[in-house]
Amino acid sequence: MIRIGIDLGGTHIKIGAVNEDGRLVKWLQAETGAGRPFPVIIGDIAAGIRQLLGELGLTESDIASIGAGVPGYADDRTGRAINCTNLGWLDEPFRNEMQCYFDCPVHVENDANAAALAENSVGVSKGCGISVLITLGTGLGSGIVLHGKPLTGFHGAAGEVGHMTLVPDGLLCNCGRAGCVERYCSATALVTHARQACLTWPDNGILRLAGGDPKAITGKMVIDAAKAGDEIAMRIFMTFAHYLAVTIDNVINFIDPEMVVLGGGISRAGTFLLDAVKSYIPPCEMGQKRPMPRIELAALGNEAGMIGAAML
Amino acid sequence: MIRIGIDLGGTHIKIGAVNEDGRLVKWLQAETGAGRPFPVIIGDIAAGIRQLLGELGLTESDIASIGAGVPGYADDRTGRAINCTNLGWLDEPFRNEMQCYFDCPVHVENDANAAALAENSVGVSKGCGISVLITLGTGLGSGIVLHGKPLTGFHGAAGEVGHMTLVPDGLLCNCGRAGCVERYCSATALVTHARQACLTWPDNGILRLAGGDPKAITGKMVIDAAKAGDEIAMRIFMTFAHYLAVTIDNVINFIDPEMVVLGGGISRAGTFLLDAVKSYIPPCEMGQKRPMPRIELAALGNEAGMIGAAML
Repeated sequence: MIRIGIDLGGTHIKIGAVNEDGRLVKWLQAETGAGRPFPVIIGDIAAGIRQLLGELGLTESDIASIGAGVPGYADDRTGRAINCTNLGWLDEPFRNEMQCYFDCPVHVENDANAAALAENSVGVSKGCGISVLITLGTGLGSGIVLHGKPLTGFHGAAGEVGHMTLVPDGLLCNCGRAGCVERYCSATALVTHARQACLTWPDNGILRLAGGDPKAITGKMVIDAAKAGDEIAMRIFMTFAHYLAVTIDNVINFIDPEMVVLGGGISRAGTFLLDAVKSYIPPCEMGQKRPMPRIELAALGNEAGMIGAAML
Repeated sequence: MIRIGIDLGGTHIKIGAVNEDGRLVKWLQAETGAGRPFPVIIGDIAAGIRQLLGELGLTESDIASIGAGVPGYADDRTGRAINCTNLGWLDEPFRNEMQCYFDCPVHVENDANAAALAENSVGVSKGCGISVLITLGTGLGSGIVLHGKPLTGFHGAAGEVGHMTLVPDGLLCNCGRAGCVERYCSATALVTHARQACLTWPDNGILRLAGGDPKAITGKMVIDAAKAGDEIAMRIFMTFAHYLAVTIDNVINFIDPEMVVLGGGISRAGTFLLDAVKSYIPPCEMGQKRPMPRIELAALGNEAGMIGAAML
């Protein structure tokens, strides 16, 4: 038997077959075509699952379950995708629609929760009683796993660390509020900060990596320039690391996890990121050592979304 | 059968008998005498329980269980009080010591977690799947209840909302770090802010309530003066309410509770506090309504600690 895990993004849909050991045995990818009607997208996903089964020489009866991680709020109790802005989905009956094609259990969950579950099941935080995954990409996503299950909150909206307030009355956020974590701790934040710095100090390593075009700057360029010792890049990176440390520290104070896992594109900076972040988290409070979780890099990379969705 | 609930504070120990409906039938109070040896304090508590039994005409065999809420970290799995700064307790075997006197199950938990459990069991958040209690007193305490059980964290240190960072690089905190929630959202914060304001604007209603002595100012005076329409007091109170709203909002974004409950001395300000706080929490995000929990005042007052401890 295999489990199907779907990682549903605003641009791509990844569909994977996961075996009983939680290993991804085969996967394929298709365009999401966001904005098309909900049943059409589900029809495409069903076709993708059939194609994957064919490539594996399996049939529908080999599927133990289907799970999907969606970019937004979801409620696995009702099987509905509550609100996925990037897909234009508002309270869509994901489970019901999928069960028009496949007669097996269908689960749906927030994508960061799914990725957190994967790391907690077969990744770096395997077996942790409480773990929190923070994914650092275009934005900042987060999932909480408590005793082997995603902690989804009362409305399916838990883990919105990216929209916690980090700086009261700070930078305006896409969400319409101010000072959200995501404005300070994401690839977008690195890029925005670097472009602004280039106005005053154009002679820096980031802009050289970008071929002199500020619009071409990426988060990776900021990190690469910082690693190479460029002073402007280093200051931007350390500001980012400082804010990320405050955010992680807030997560620790609230839920006291066994491990905090850093994933997403920015986490490819590896120990360079990890060491910087740890240097800003004080191990003492009230003059005494306080209990600290381990802080580690994610192990499953881009596969986490599919593996976690399959495990729902 | 009754359950014994102990609310162990730095100044007073409250010992209560709670019946099967979660109602406090009788209680008594003794001085803590913090700083005395751990076994001596436990001996006093045992004597207090015997006195309470006598007053109720009951015997030891009528006790179903004993629970204690302690001001610090505790681990109910091992029955140990890990770190209670105000009592000078470091990794004390609470359960073992208590079972030298009573042959029944003994539980130990953080005091804010116990109070949160009481509200979730028989108080305002009764039956909520996820609720968070925030107690506004000298400091800011917090307890999380998930499906009827305290969420204590991996090291028994969850719910430290008072030491989450609210203002990066902000006011220095007692804990040695900067910008903690407690520096902005507590009776202490109201008093500190009011005393400072009196240096510039001594002609204000708070100072009049304090008989002209800034050292005599209390949190209640600030609130009473604000209620009476004093402009300085109102500004201080609304700043407090704004910071508290940001804190509540961060809790909502992280764990998506069904209800946030406000308790502690400051919560006696009632709807005056509740309306101010709610006015600062935006119901929209990304241009869309987001799921919002109810925000309510605690119902059990000072009894919550004992009732919750009895229910552990």
